[in-house]
Formats: sequence, C-alpha cells, structure tokens
Amino acid sequence: MAQFINSKESLVVDALDGFLRLSGKAGLARLDGYPHIKVICRTDHKPSRVAIISGGGSGHEPAHAGFVGKGMLTAAVCGEVFASPSVEAVLAGILAVTGKGGCLLIVKNYTGDRLNFGLAAEKARALGKKVEVVVVADDIAIPGILQPRGVAGTLFVHKIAGYLAESGASLKTVAEAARKVAKSILSLGVSLNSCTLPGIGREDRVPPDKAELGLGIHGEPGVELIDFTGAKLVASLLLEKLFANAPKAKAYALLLNNLGATTALEMNLVANEILGHFAGKKIKLVVGPAPLMTALDMHGVSASLLPLKPGFEKALVCPVEPTAWPGAHLAIKPRLVKLPKVVKASKARASSNAKLREIVERACDLLIAKEADLNGLDAKVGDGDTGSTIATAARHLKSGLGGMPLANTSEFFASLSHTLSKTMGGSSGVLLAILFAAAGSAAAVKKTWAPSLQTGLARVMEYGGAKPGDRTMIDALEPALVALVAGKSLAEAASAARRGANATAKMTRAGAGRSSYVSATNLEGIVDPGAEAVACLLEGLSRQN
Amino acid sequence: MAQFINSKESLVVDALDGFLRLSGKAGLARLDGYPHIKVICRTDHKPSRVAIISGGGSGHEPAHAGFVGKGMLTAAVCGEVFASPSVEAVLAGILAVTGKGGCLLIVKNYTGDRLNFGLAAEKARALGKKVEVVVVADDIAIPGILQPRGVAGTLFVHKIAGYLAESGASLKTVAEAARKVAKSILSLGVSLNSCTLPGIGREDRVPPDKAELGLGIHGEPGVELIDFTGAKLVASLLLEKLFANAPKAKAYALLLNNLGATTALEMNLVANEILGHFAGKKIKLVVGPAPLMTALDMHGVSASLLPLKPGFEKALVCPVEPTAWPGAHLAIKPRLVKLPKVVKASKARASSNAKLREIVERACDLLIAKEADLNGLDAKVGDGDTGSTIATAARHLKSGLGGMPLANTSEFFASLSHTLSKTMGGSSGVLLAILFAAAGSAAAVKKTWAPSLQTGLARVMEYGGAKPGDRTMIDALEPALVALVAGKSLAEAASAARRGANATAKMTRAGAGRSSYVSATNLEGIVDPGAEAVACLLEGLSRQN
Repeated sequence: MAQFINSKESLVVDALDGFLRLSGKAGLARLDGYPHIKVICRTDHKPSRVAIISGGGSGHEPAHAGFVGKGMLTAAVCGEVFASPSVEAVLAGILAVTGKGGCLLIVKNYTGDRLNFGLAAEKARALGKKVEVVVVADDIAIPGILQPRGVAGTLFVHKIAGYLAESGASLKTVAEAARKVAKSILSLGVSLNSCTLPGIGREDRVPPDKAELGLGIHGEPGVELIDFTGAKLVASLLLEKLFANAPKAKAYALLLNNLGATTALEMNLVANEILGHFAGKKIKLVVGPAPLMTALDMHGVSASLLPLKPGFEKALVCPVEPTAWPGAHLAIKPRLVKLPKVVKASKARASSNAKLREIVERACDLLIAKEADLNGLDAKVGDGDTGSTIATAARHLKSGLGGMPLANTSEFFASLSHTLSKTMGGSSGVLLAILFAAAGSAAAVKKTWAPSLQTGLARVMEYGGAKPGDRTMIDALEPALVALVAGKSLAEAASAARRGANATAKMTRAGAGRSSYVSATNLEGIVDPGAEAVACLLEGLSRQN
Repeated sequence: MAQFINSKESLVVDALDGFLRLSGKAGLARLDGYPHIKVICRTDHKPSRVAIISGGGSGHEPAHAGFVGKGMLTAAVCGEVFASPSVEAVLAGILAVTGKGGCLLIVKNYTGDRLNFGLAAEKARALGKKVEVVVVADDIAIPGILQPRGVAGTLFVHKIAGYLAESGASLKTVAEAARKVAKSILSLGVSLNSCTLPGIGREDRVPPDKAELGLGIHGEPGVELIDFTGAKLVASLLLEKLFANAPKAKAYALLLNNLGATTALEMNLVANEILGHFAGKKIKLVVGPAPLMTALDMHGVSASLLPLKPGFEKALVCPVEPTAWPGAHLAIKPRLVKLPKVVKASKARASSNAKLREIVERACDLLIAKEADLNGLDAKVGDGDTGSTIATAARHLKSGLGGMPLANTSEFFASLSHTLSKTMGGSSGVLLAILFAAAGSAAAVKKTWAPSLQTGLARVMEYGGAKPGDRTMIDALEPALVALVAGKSLAEAASAARRGANATAKMTRAGAGRSSYVSATNLEGIVDPGAEAVACLLEGLSRQN
C-alpha cells in the first residue's frame, strides 16, 4: 500500500523537519544529530525549571514531538518507527535541556525504552545531572501481566508533569506527582484493523464482523477477537473493563484517543456512547477525542481513565502551547435551543383577486396541456420529465388557488414560492421557489410585477449558476422580463421569449442542468424544454389576453 | 468494512451529540429539531454582530460543526453524510442566530447546497433578515469547468469572515471580504485511496503504484490517475498546479488538509516537501497540516492556496475558540541546536591499580572459561548465547584494561559501564551498563564497592523490571551483595550467590527476559544461565583469593 513518504529510511527525519517548519513562533528546534539522534526540544526552557523529557519509537504521532512546548514536554527523543531511540540519543536529549532544575524522564513500559532511557539516565547522573524516571504501564489489556504496556494514558503524565514543571515545582514534587498519576491510569483499546507498516504494508487480520480488544500501539494483535456490533458495544466494553480495574474516585478524567485512521464522525460517536452510558456518568473531564498516541493508520480507538485527585483537574485544563493537545473539557449534556418558529409564507391569509386568479388558472392549463410535448423534448436532451414536473406543479397550484393571498402581489409570490418548493420536484422546483421568494421580497418594496420577477431571476442565476446562453429556461425568461420592464407588451415579451427559446436549439453546450451531460451532437437542433415551457406559457397568455 | 457507528440512520446525530458533550464551557448548542434539522450553533452570539453560517453534507468532519465557536462560525447546518441539508434546516439555522447584524451564508459550490441555502436565504429575507451569500468554488482539479467544486479552501473564508464578524464589522464589509477571499483561493487534492461509505464500504479503485489527482471530497474519482513515486512528487505536483493558476502575490497562505486517514507522519512529511521545495518559498503562513475538510477516511491530502492581501494575515493568525482550527503558523526553516558534548566516561585518564587489574583479569578468564557451559544451559531455556555474550564482553574488557582508570573506583565503574554498553549485546549488556553506571555515580559519594554495586543493582531492577524470584541473574547477585554489604567474606557472598542461583532451577515462571516465553515444564530443573554466571564468577574469585 502506497504512502506519502519518500523512503522508509528518511521517513522520521523528513516528518520531524516538516513538523519544525510549522512550529512558527514556538521556540522549538532539533538537535543537530540527524539521522541517528532525533531530538526535538524547546529553546525557551528555563534551566531552573524541571525539564520534562519523553520519547520512544516513532509512528505514534503527534506523540511525542507534537507535545513539545510550553506546558508539556521540554524534549522528545524519537526513535525510528516503532523502535526505541538509542542511549546516545536519550543522553543527548537530557544534556541539551537539563539545567539545575533537573529533569524527569517519562518512559512507556517497553523493555527497549526502559533500558535505553535508564542507561541514559545513569550516564546523565554520572555527569552531575539530577534525573528522575517515571515508567508508565497503563494498558489493562492483558490481565495479570507483569509488565503492562505504556499506551495513550502516558499523555496524562505529560500534561500534569508539564504543568507542574512550568509552574516552577521542584523535581521531587514533579516526579512524585508523575508517579502518582502513572500508577492510577488505565487504558484499553479496540481496533477494527491493524496498521500499515511503512515499506511493508498492512496485515488485514480482523474480519469485517470482528474487532480486536486490547491491541497494542505497534500493531500487536489484540488479546481477544470479539464480535463487533457497533459503537454502543465498544463503549460499554471499554467502560466496563476500565471501571472494573480503576481505583475508586468521585470523578474521573477520560482521554479518548484516535489510533490513527478513525474518522472524526466515529470518534465523536464513540464519545457520545461513552458519555451517554450510565457507567460514564462519573467522567467529569474529557481529553479528545483526538489522535494523541496513534499506531500509524490503525482504525481503532483507545480510552484512558484517570481518577481525579486534588490538583489533577487544574493541571489538565490549563492551556498549553502544543496544538496537538486538544484541551481537557468538561463533559456536559448536549444543550438544546428551541427551534425558531418559522413564519410560513403559506400561512398568509387567503384573499381574492378575480383577474389574477383567471390568469393563473389559464397559465396552469396552458402548462398542463404541454405536458406530453415538453416530456418529448426533454427525452431528447435530458431525462424526459420536464413536462410532467411542470404539469404536476401546475395542477397543485390550480387546485390550491382558493387559499392563496391573491390580492397582495408580494404575499402571492411568497405563497407561490412555498407551493412550488413543496410540489415541484428537482432543481427546477427549488429554482422557481427561489425566483418567487425573491420576487415576493422585491414586490413588497417595488410593487410592480416585472421588476420584482427580474430580481427573482437574478437570484436564480446567482444560486443556480446559469446565465443567458447556458441553454436553460433563463434564455427565454430573461429577454421576456427585459421587454416587460422596458414597458413592452405581453405579446412583445412572448416574442422575445420565443426568440430566446429557439436560440437554445443552436447552443451545443449546456452550462447547467442535466443537459450539461449531453453531447453537442445530441443537443443540436433541440430547443431547451425549460425555455420552451416559458415561451409557450407567454405565447399562450398573450394570445388569450 | 466495520465502522464505529450504531446505524447509518443515526450516524450524524449521534456524532453531533458526542461533539456537543465535549464542547465544555464553549457556548455551543443544537437546535431542537433532530433528526431532520441538524444545526449546531453558538449560544453566546451577539445579535448586533454578523452571524457566519455554513454547512453542507456531513462526512467532512471537523467541518462544519467543529468550526462553530467564537471567531469562526456562528452556526453549522449539517446534512446527512454527503447530502445537502434541507431548505427548512438552513432556514432554521439562519433564524436561530441572525439578529440585526444580519448573516453571511458560506456555501460550497454544489448544486444542492447552492439551491437549498439559496432558497433559505430568500425565505429569511422575506422574513426581514439581512442575508448575504458567498459561494466557494476553489477546486482547480478540472480545467475549464463552469462550476468548480468547493473544497477545503472554504476554511479560509470561514476564518477571515469569522474574524471580521467577531471584530464587529458590518455585513457589507464581511460579505465583501468573504467574496474577495473566495475568489482568490485555489485547492487541489491527491489521494491514494477512496473513502469508506457508512453501510456501503470502500471502492478500492486506486492501484498501489498510482494516485488520484484532483479527487472530490465525496469519493468522486480523481481527474487523473498518476504514477505515484512518493511525497516529493506529490509536493511538486500540487505546488506546480496551484501556482500556475494562482493570482500573483508577494506571499501566500497554505492550508494543508488531511483528507481523513493519512497519518500525521505522512502529513508532516508532505509539509516538509512542500515548504522545502523552491516553489514553496512564497508560502508565508501555513494552516495545518490537520484534518479540516475530510472525505471520511480517505487516504489523501489537499493543499489550498490563498494569496495574502492586506488584513488576511491578521485575520488568519488570530486565535479562535474551536479546537479543530489548528492555527496559522509562520513557515520557517527548522531550527538547529548544537549537539551537547557528551563527556564520555571512557575518556577518563588511564590509571593503574595492580591488584584490581589482577582481579578483573581473573574474572574475565573465569567467564571466558564458562562460555560453552553457559551456552549449553541457555540453549535449554533461552536462545543459547548467554555464554558467548558474556565471554565476548570479557575478552574486550580484558584487552582494554590498560586504558582504563583503575585507580579510581567511580571512574572505573563508569568506564566499565561504557565498555559493556559497547561490547555486550542484548538487554543484558544494557542492564550491566546501567548497573556499573549507577555504581560509578554512587562510588563517587560512598566510596566502597559493595554498597555502590547495590545501588547499581537497584537501578537494574527499576529499569529492567525484574526483582529477586523472577529467574534472572538478580537471584544470585542480590544475596551476594547483601552479604558483602553486611561485612561477610567473599566466600560467604559466593555461597549466597550459589544458593540463589540454584534456587532458580525451581522457579517455573520467569518474570523477565527471554525465559518468560518458555513454558514451566521446560524451565523446571534448569538453573538460570545469568544467575549461574554470577555464582560461578564469585565462586571462582573466592577460591583463588
């Protein structure tokens, strides 16, 4: 499977440099030790403060480089994808940022990381640095295991230790708090697919109706293959297992981690199920959902639980510089706002206007009579339903005329818009509804028909995106309205519409509507059915006038 | 392909509620119109200010609900996945948030959105609201198309219009700026895979060595299937096509959009290629890389270019409430920090100590002599190399003794640590390096051997995670050091080590190391090779004493 990389070898350094290019005003840099030493560090760290250092294999982005910045990490020591960084790299990271405040190493519980960070810590101590180490082992996937893995819960340690360090606490205080946090975190993941290893590919080992529970963040298979029935199941499983193992507390913080390729839609949905579940009521604070400690592009989610102890909440909600940290937010019930009472135009009081009624009825009859002709025309250049679409709307309109506000032009147009939007299908129904809605608003000011309809047509062109010459009903309607606004007679307007309609037969490219998918050869010589309808209508009305 | 959803029908409302549950202190709510009307809106919008409203089909998360909040959108009207919201939903959104400041609708250029937002706008105007509409058509994928699609560049319009609205600008000013921005944005996408439609699945139409250029954000196939050779190619293609079409400007803003399932590693790498390319030099400001306008889980990336005009930069960098907005950062060259000069312990000056030298040489000879025995033991419970690993290190140590600082215990331990970390493979090499590094630091203070080594052993247990009883060399080393610290003789310490080593033969579960993968039956009766090595060494030394 292809990936947006150049080579497996340069992958991590290329990505780290990309990250640095976008660090903008933040004081971030890298140690000049590529390719072996890949350390991202703050340049604005005060030596008197405790430096917070983490790291490990890459492939877990934004962890760990993404969390370097004021309020979180002072440095991140990055290995190759899923491989621990060397002792030399860790030592270089420690020496680069550790001043008299000392440093805390936050290490995920994997043998390689523990040993390499451990030896580097000893070497740094031998060089006179004050170094404390906290190992995070938050994964509860494998019951009874002696060395649980360190996974996404590690972020809680980064954040709380980072907060304390930034506020000037001593190394002893920071390390004690970090150990307290590390000891009480629990994490568990569920995945629907493994991850794509750069240059190797993906092991598609999860069947479509199954999910892996208790997977690792390096594509290690889950502890259990479970029947997958959806987000509800995942939420209750995660909650059940986490709370069964969690130290009792009045309130908890939850970290919802996107393992890589899960959509935001799914992540929000899982959040909804977890927080809406009765077992989720004790969750006060939520970090995410966001990609925090990913397993490359794994389609999965993990949840980490932290029992809230005094001071934790304040530390978690405090804003930080790294933009990868999504903040910690109070879990709330969705707030509801009453739906606005939409004053429906159709609710205008019925009023009579014999002359208008007669004209509209005749117009409807004219259009109904053209149903077959227009369908036939449309069959050649579209989907053959123009006649029926128009006739159906005309029948509805005619039968509903008695309830319409005929005595007021503005209200009548608005009411007509409403009727057409309800009874006339397709884009043309919405377009005519737009025309008459805008004409109604215009008529409330301008009073006369033709200029109001011209305003309506302008909106049709704006929203519909077609203009004269695009082979639509506009080609007939526009010249007719121009004639009427110029004071010409209805007959003259009808002639203008007819000329416009006939001209569409020579237009071999439709700029909008369904005819835009039809080839020039098939369009040539055929009048656009919408334009034809307008011309027929006006011709009919002017003849009978 | 399974997804973290409950049903296709409830997908969008479930996810929106999850989003709202995490909106914390932000004044966000939804209109009480589920399932038909899905509008997320601010509750803290001042009616005198211009309301900024956007929306469209779902499946593009975080767009659009994720961008509702102070400084960006006032409301988002959400349709079902990839389907335009209804006229009624848009109208409800407009009426819910539009006060006397009026509102601006930001519409992506799709027929459904244009018509539905358009008709809603007309209806709202008829109800007395001041409404302006801006249509965004930033996709340059299809040359010469009459109606280019609206894609990720739309975010530039949200941000700049949101900034102006928040700063109290009039509707006219906001709408004019929004149109100016919309007119000058260009976007283009590249994808390595299509997206998974909820309840339907994914059309795997892109071969592994190809990429789609100019794809849509609804899984529409790209305009061109290109040979994919990596991130470098993608960067230069995007830059070439964007700049070929872009209005000339002194500086540009770039928005780098993750189309869904691209890893952060890849996104940063693409950013590095784009900003490192000569054609990318004019990019001053970068938004992302981040998922901004996604196509569900599409494995792709899009780039949007905005020529910077006066005021744009200020508007783009201003912080906003929505956490989905990743900020706009200055594009910079990666900053470098000089690698710390690691004072190597091995560089301590050589010094002589005849007695120590003799002891160490004898220790080395003893271990070298046991090579075959220890390998044989390890073959039964591990991978059969314990003897060779130890003997190799011993040979190196012996040959290098002349250059070591033998007269100073602390320096000698540090030097021994360094030698072992270089010459002894496997975890045991790092563990012994840790032991002697820590012992060296301790010796600098405590002076005597045994307590210093005990400190070193404590660190080995801390980092290595094993303790007495876990069937490791610790089982021999720990009792021996306890005896020595208590003032007992070397012979007594050797006896303690032997008792400890022999006890490992009864330990049927290894708590650490390679033997932890070996079954109880195979472990029973076999002494741990590491413990055996320690016991043999001490026995040998005490015999010859």
